[in-house]
Amino acid sequence: MDTLRIITGASHPWFAQEVAKKCGTELCNVHHIRFSNDNMFVQIEENVRAADVFIIQTPRPSVSDHLLEMLMLVQACRSASAERITVVMPYFFYARSDKKDQPRIPITARLVADMIEAAGADRVLCMNLHSQQVQGFFRIPIDQIFATEHLCKAIKPYIDHDSWTVVSPDLGGAKLAKMYSEILKLPLAMMTKNRPGNYEEPEVGYLTGDVHGRSVLIVDDEIASGGTFVKAAKWLREEAGAKAVYGAVIHPVLGGKAVERLAAAPIERLWMTDTFPVPYLAPNMEIVSVTDIFADAIMRIHQHISVSQMFKIKRF
Amino acid sequence: MDTLRIITGASHPWFAQEVAKKCGTELCNVHHIRFSNDNMFVQIEENVRAADVFIIQTPRPSVSDHLLEMLMLVQACRSASAERITVVMPYFFYARSDKKDQPRIPITARLVADMIEAAGADRVLCMNLHSQQVQGFFRIPIDQIFATEHLCKAIKPYIDHDSWTVVSPDLGGAKLAKMYSEILKLPLAMMTKNRPGNYEEPEVGYLTGDVHGRSVLIVDDEIASGGTFVKAAKWLREEAGAKAVYGAVIHPVLGGKAVERLAAAPIERLWMTDTFPVPYLAPNMEIVSVTDIFADAIMRIHQHISVSQMFKIKRF
Amino acid sequence: MDTLRIITGASHPWFAQEVAKKCGTELCNVHHIRFSNDNMFVQIEENVRAADVFIIQTPRPSVSDHLLEMLMLVQACRSASAERITVVMPYFFYARSDKKDQPRIPITARLVADMIEAAGADRVLCMNLHSQQVQGFFRIPIDQIFATEHLCKAIKPYIDHDSWTVVSPDLGGAKLAKMYSEILKLPLAMMTKNRPGNYEEPEVGYLTGDVHGRSVLIVDDEIASGGTFVKAAKWLREEAGAKAVYGAVIHPVLGGKAVERLAAAPIERLWMTDTFPVPYLAPNMEIVSVTDIFADAIMRIHQHISVSQMFKIKRF
Amino acid sequence: MDTLRIITGASHPWFAQEVAKKCGTELCNVHHIRFSNDNMFVQIEENVRAADVFIIQTPRPSVSDHLLEMLMLVQACRSASAERITVVMPYFFYARSDKKDQPRIPITARLVADMIEAAGADRVLCMNLHSQQVQGFFRIPIDQIFATEHLCKAIKPYIDHDSWTVVSPDLGGAKLAKMYSEILKLPLAMMTKNRPGNYEEPEVGYLTGDVHGRSVLIVDDEIASGGTFVKAAKWLREEAGAKAVYGAVIHPVLGGKAVERLAAAPIERLWMTDTFPVPYLAPNMEIVSVTDIFADAIMRIHQHISVSQMFKIKRF
Amino acid sequence: MDTLRIITGASHPWFAQEVAKKCGTELCNVHHIRFSNDNMFVQIEENVRAADVFIIQTPRPSVSDHLLEMLMLVQACRSASAERITVVMPYFFYARSDKKDQPRIPITARLVADMIEAAGADRVLCMNLHSQQVQGFFRIPIDQIFATEHLCKAIKPYIDHDSWTVVSPDLGGAKLAKMYSEILKLPLAMMTKNRPGNYEEPEVGYLTGDVHGRSVLIVDDEIASGGTFVKAAKWLREEAGAKAVYGAVIHPVLGGKAVERLAAAPIERLWMTDTFPVPYLAPNMEIVSVTDIFADAIMRIHQHISVSQMFKIKRF
Amino acid sequence: MDTLRIITGASHPWFAQEVAKKCGTELCNVHHIRFSNDNMFVQIEENVRAADVFIIQTPRPSVSDHLLEMLMLVQACRSASAERITVVMPYFFYARSDKKDQPRIPITARLVADMIEAAGADRVLCMNLHSQQVQGFFRIPIDQIFATEHLCKAIKPYIDHDSWTVVSPDLGGAKLAKMYSEILKLPLAMMTKNRPGNYEEPEVGYLTGDVHGRSVLIVDDEIASGGTFVKAAKWLREEAGAKAVYGAVIHPVLGGKAVERLAAAPIERLWMTDTFPVPYLAPNMEIVSVTDIFADAIMRIHQHISVSQMFKIKRF
Repeated sequence: MDTLRIITGASHPWFAQEVAKKCGTELCNVHHIRFSNDNMFVQIEENVRAADVFIIQTPRPSVSDHLLEMLMLVQACRSASAERITVVMPYFFYARSDKKDQPRIPITARLVADMIEAAGADRVLCMNLHSQQVQGFFRIPIDQIFATEHLCKAIKPYIDHDSWTVVSPDLGGAKLAKMYSEILKLPLAMMTKNRPGNYEEPEVGYLTGDVHGRSVLIVDDEIASGGTFVKAAKWLREEAGAKAVYGAVIHPVLGGKAVERLAAAPIERLWMTDTFPVPYLAPNMEIVSVTDIFADAIMRIHQHISVSQMFKIKRF
Repeated sequence: MDTLRIITGASHPWFAQEVAKKCGTELCNVHHIRFSNDNMFVQIEENVRAADVFIIQTPRPSVSDHLLEMLMLVQACRSASAERITVVMPYFFYARSDKKDQPRIPITARLVADMIEAAGADRVLCMNLHSQQVQGFFRIPIDQIFATEHLCKAIKPYIDHDSWTVVSPDLGGAKLAKMYSEILKLPLAMMTKNRPGNYEEPEVGYLTGDVHGRSVLIVDDEIASGGTFVKAAKWLREEAGAKAVYGAVIHPVLGGKAVERLAAAPIERLWMTDTFPVPYLAPNMEIVSVTDIFADAIMRIHQHISVSQMFKIKRF
Repeated sequence: MDTLRIITGASHPWFAQEVAKKCGTELCNVHHIRFSNDNMFVQIEENVRAADVFIIQTPRPSVSDHLLEMLMLVQACRSASAERITVVMPYFFYARSDKKDQPRIPITARLVADMIEAAGADRVLCMNLHSQQVQGFFRIPIDQIFATEHLCKAIKPYIDHDSWTVVSPDLGGAKLAKMYSEILKLPLAMMTKNRPGNYEEPEVGYLTGDVHGRSVLIVDDEIASGGTFVKAAKWLREEAGAKAVYGAVIHPVLGGKAVERLAAAPIERLWMTDTFPVPYLAPNMEIVSVTDIFADAIMRIHQHISVSQMFKIKRF
Repeated sequence: MDTLRIITGASHPWFAQEVAKKCGTELCNVHHIRFSNDNMFVQIEENVRAADVFIIQTPRPSVSDHLLEMLMLVQACRSASAERITVVMPYFFYARSDKKDQPRIPITARLVADMIEAAGADRVLCMNLHSQQVQGFFRIPIDQIFATEHLCKAIKPYIDHDSWTVVSPDLGGAKLAKMYSEILKLPLAMMTKNRPGNYEEPEVGYLTGDVHGRSVLIVDDEIASGGTFVKAAKWLREEAGAKAVYGAVIHPVLGGKAVERLAAAPIERLWMTDTFPVPYLAPNMEIVSVTDIFADAIMRIHQHISVSQMFKIKRF
Repeated sequence: MDTLRIITGASHPWFAQEVAKKCGTELCNVHHIRFSNDNMFVQIEENVRAADVFIIQTPRPSVSDHLLEMLMLVQACRSASAERITVVMPYFFYARSDKKDQPRIPITARLVADMIEAAGADRVLCMNLHSQQVQGFFRIPIDQIFATEHLCKAIKPYIDHDSWTVVSPDLGGAKLAKMYSEILKLPLAMMTKNRPGNYEEPEVGYLTGDVHGRSVLIVDDEIASGGTFVKAAKWLREEAGAKAVYGAVIHPVLGGKAVERLAAAPIERLWMTDTFPVPYLAPNMEIVSVTDIFADAIMRIHQHISVSQMFKIKRF
Repeated sequence: MDTLRIITGASHPWFAQEVAKKCGTELCNVHHIRFSNDNMFVQIEENVRAADVFIIQTPRPSVSDHLLEMLMLVQACRSASAERITVVMPYFFYARSDKKDQPRIPITARLVADMIEAAGADRVLCMNLHSQQVQGFFRIPIDQIFATEHLCKAIKPYIDHDSWTVVSPDLGGAKLAKMYSEILKLPLAMMTKNRPGNYEEPEVGYLTGDVHGRSVLIVDDEIASGGTFVKAAKWLREEAGAKAVYGAVIHPVLGGKAVERLAAAPIERLWMTDTFPVPYLAPNMEIVSVTDIFADAIMRIHQHISVSQMFKIKRF
């Protein structure tokens, strides 16, 4: 595999540029046009024959445009005789549409997987999948990398082991919270909606584990509008007696007024990666770049070195 | 094949409704949500088991959203055990991206075909394909219907056989113009960019056939921004001496200021179908509905009757 | 679709027979041989041309034999011109091998899905999938049915709403426990392994919700050796102060000494379905047959009627 | 990719030999038999494991035999563990059967593409495709090369810029004629069948651009029987007043009496490539070999160098 | 499945016509053209939507043309929305090229199977396959019918049970000869090339079983040039002392001078089916039509009735 | 292709170890678990990225377990980014289930081929296929190696050319027996079930060629229970007057009491390869290891050297 080529779609060019730089190369030039009928056009401006191509795209709004553009880049590279094409999705497109839990709905994550394979990709690289089963949607190999250890390195200096607790805002985030708890060596609490004693009682926010008088670190994989996150923060502070609330999130989608909402919430500090571009940085926010993790993973894939060895966690 | 079910995406609901009504049925209810992370969600709210499903979607902006929504509907119907799924695209998505005439570009129309097949569609129904070869992009059967004869019926009362000429604004539209010329029994002229005598002379608008003192009918398959169309109209009027300019267009994409631009141009009357929603109707515009053609084709496909017999043209 | 044909492999013939009878038909004769080189042979002894075939097989040990036999039956029906082949797996083969949570392991559930499709099946029917995402492993439609409402009907007479609680023995079973809690209108508790206050403390069985002095209903989707289940029952009784322990399990795999172990445990009553053959019935066990649910689902699929309408639960 | 291996079918061995020689290698030995039941047999007589194989075949009559033989060679190489197989079709088989412009006909060019992929080819190399959309019939990459610049080099010494014009004999050849016009810097004229003023007038040969008193260069991509070409030459000379007629054709299929017919026509000189074997050379014919173009393209593909850079034309 | 449509290629139209008549229908009209560049064109002239189409083609020379024409018909029917397409090959194309018994040769029979599936066929119907394993080359169902019982009915009146013997001319035909022996209740002999006692002795025609003073019936599945058959007949008569030689052959390919050669050989009577057109009938030849077997099989497939029940032989 | 990795399933580890050693490497560590629900689990414990992986598995009982384990290993390697995966089956799984010679049975060998391809294998390596046509069941390349020449080397010292004969116990083994006869330069005899003179006589063991007073070498590709082999040995000795009986078998499946049965039979010496583990070695048995043939073939495939050149036989 001679040449490494890194290509980006229009979703998050700064991120891709940083990754490319850390891989010791530059982004391959791509010419973009949008026609007056709203059709997109891309042209890769450098030879990719026999190259080991990585195409980076983040599911940032407008999601459909970025998805289609990514597929167009894959097909263009395939027909331009690239040797191997790896689709790098810092966050998996439609990650949460991964099951049919109601009748007559699509499993859009499987549709995404089918489209990626139909376009001609050879591999996929993702960070912190929402559900591990999505790997089974692909026939092609998929590598998963984790921001968790990296975020924890940034969080560690703030932590007092005796008075901090990791909190998952719901059952679905239990596994991720457990991962933080293991790495930071902190106790774990979990919020659920439940009825404490009698079914007739209303379902309330309910907490396993004790947070009274403690600092809590709420962890989640994605923040979109910020609504759920802010509500959890308030409840922990006001109802559950937490001393202070911190937060860590892998994928800061941050649509609409999310930044404002989070900035105004009783959150001391919110760590997030840079897999999405953050419109502006409120004083209580801190970006932990994962571009070096992506660069490392890309170089390992390019050089056929184990990716799982990048991480201390051995089961996830 | 027991039940006929017609489903529409969000691109052009009024059109689909008309088609459904003319098929003697109603649109199947679909529940649409757009989440705060810009992900879409659809749920078909009626049983489609063993049904003969038609999914109607027009490539109206935002094109990527409508394309993805259409694929999600296909996959949802497939996994909900529809017997047969026909994708009805009044205009083919990315119809003009049908070849690789430069290095390292995608053939997006083929990508669209691959995605439609990957999502699980069984058939395709389209109106006036931009290039006939696109049929070869599919493994599944594709039916093509034509608005041309229908438009001509509306145009006929205006025509004086002795003084009208059909004009194609470029070489690519020659076959379509020929079709009009045959149906309306009018002579044909063609605009090309060419050099009349010497290669050193600048390439100019150049006309085959005579339009001086005649009324011309410019015909095209798509108007997006309207720029080319208006320029042709002006040139024919001002430089080529046409007495009056009329126009006929199959797919009125009409992005941006197209309606204003066309309204202000020296065009007596512009006939267009309703495959796209037209923002508002300028005085010199007339809509010729093709919903009955679509309804007829859908019923024929549903009842296994020949579609090609709908039209008098036998070669296209 | 003229004829309904129900075929069974060798895993659980009594179950299939009951289902067939409730569908108003009889099992299709199959001739089985095992050669001296341990190769299996099957021959379907009745014409299946144009038939709507359902092949029933349970992942009972020896699992590999039953899996391969099922695939052989599918391929035999396919090449014998069956119109439609539905694979009926009361429990999905290798349901728990659904993700790659360690490096270099297979996702065997996806392999199973691929093999079922490669053999030529058209549809799948399953009961209570271990993880909903497995639906995304298939291109062909998959119907899911639920034993939960049925089991609850059997459990209800035993329940005192004021003193009973549903308990999930681990986080993975939370969704199933929630389903029971909704249907039976009982409060919910969950066991997790966790550290209540300080990371240095050992991880202990930890309970969210209160069970002291209450009767608990432990629910799980599968019991294999019975070890985890018995341990949970003891802990709830002896450590957590539960008054009495009941259990409900969908798929009683019951390998090795499981029946003896469960019979000897402090479990008042254990409800289980008949998706697996139970070696013998201990006094504290009760079988709730789901053959009528399967028969109902098969008839609905055969007659193109909605399967999801069989159940009151609308999201799962 | 270690070894380059060039293999030819029986259609045009001399051509393949020349290409191989210019690639610095020799044709791989192939053993051919035709059995008494008209079945063909081929055996490749040298090891092709891990080799980069190019299989050259021209759609010369009998076309079906040569097509099938080509596919047999592909499959033989695939199962003999070739690393990569490139099908080199100087002219695409069934290039003109590329659309369904009448009901119930095959798109044989797509069938050819499907058969090539089914046989196991990895890539395709073609010269001057009849329609660019045929690229979209393939999932595998296809490289296109052009004879046009090469032919022009041979034609140039004959040209007088002030009195020559390029002529396309029909609308379908407009793009090719434009290419010649650009390279040779000559004005362009086009023959169409049309009605100049009134639809009731008979359709006549009609010319855009002026050729009176000028020398014309008729260009086309294929000459089969020569009928159309000769008729155009005569009309231009006798009716349109051309001073002299020259011709350039990419693919000289030349079936039946074509050579005789062209030799007797008022054509001063006819340039053609050697993609087909020419039965004998009439005095007014000149062969321009494209074997070095093919050799250059094969070496570039073999060494992963851009093929599009071989040509000055950047859009086609 | 509403309508039955029977279509034939150009290989053996009389045969297809007879089959159609016996099915109570007429051949569907097909328009055939061969262009001057040797490309073929077909157009099906009647609506085949939702029809149950059978396409009949025999591998008569020129084999490649007939194979390609058959595939073109399949693709045309597929894209014209036929409900089901059954390819009826009285003799399988390239039946004997079914294994790779030398390095670097194609398995052309598998290539044929792949092409039939790629073109879009749903089923295959064949008579007396050369090797049973060819069924495993297809994913789609394949029905096999047998001429053997039918031929035997014609042969029976000639037989004297006490003095006749069935002879296979080589090992490969042993299974077929056994079938005749069972049906006609005659003893069996087999010719092999072998060395009776010592390896150093030359390999000779060698016979198992006794034919001295007996009438022999040589049976084979195909006669091409007739060379082997005539040689066997002579050897049996002249060397092995047979009293009289008769012959029975399923597929009379009869290329070159085969008819003359067989007419001149010491063969009393040669029975053959009409799966191939016989140029002329020598006095010692008799045609046994199998058109009614094909008609019966087609009607059974059309009506979903068992095909295997047509025959008394239960293992083959 | 950087690294060679040899992996074995649980069927015959000693064999794989020997092969690995002869390839100059060691077996890759694999972690095996069998859960209490009889589900298997495998984990490859070393990095296989970009490796050239060979997975060795023999169809030893329990066959289904070994087949599924092999497929799990293939899928695990595929998703762990192996460059190329070769499935090494010393004996093909379900080799004899290669045709549909009765209605409504599976062709399990084709099912095996489909599963191997679905799991993601790139190539197959087998020894002495039961029927050569099985190669046509695969799309991926398959290499076949032969134990015959190797076994003959061991047998040669025992042979007296003047008094030995090779015997095939049935018609199906004729080709294998011929191979031995060619290599050992011995005459050939064949056992068939036949009726020597009159159809009414009972079918008896019948022998072509003479064995009276001679030593015979019975050859077969597989011995399972040993029943047929022992019966043939007795018949040759007792009825046909053979002086002494020897045997050679490629694949010693040897289920049940086969070893005891063969040890007690009138067989002087029985040569067999080590493709299966032999429970214990009776005094009249001799193992001829083929591990060096497999090692040689693996190294040739790894280094892209012809495999067919390993053998003197050129047609098989």
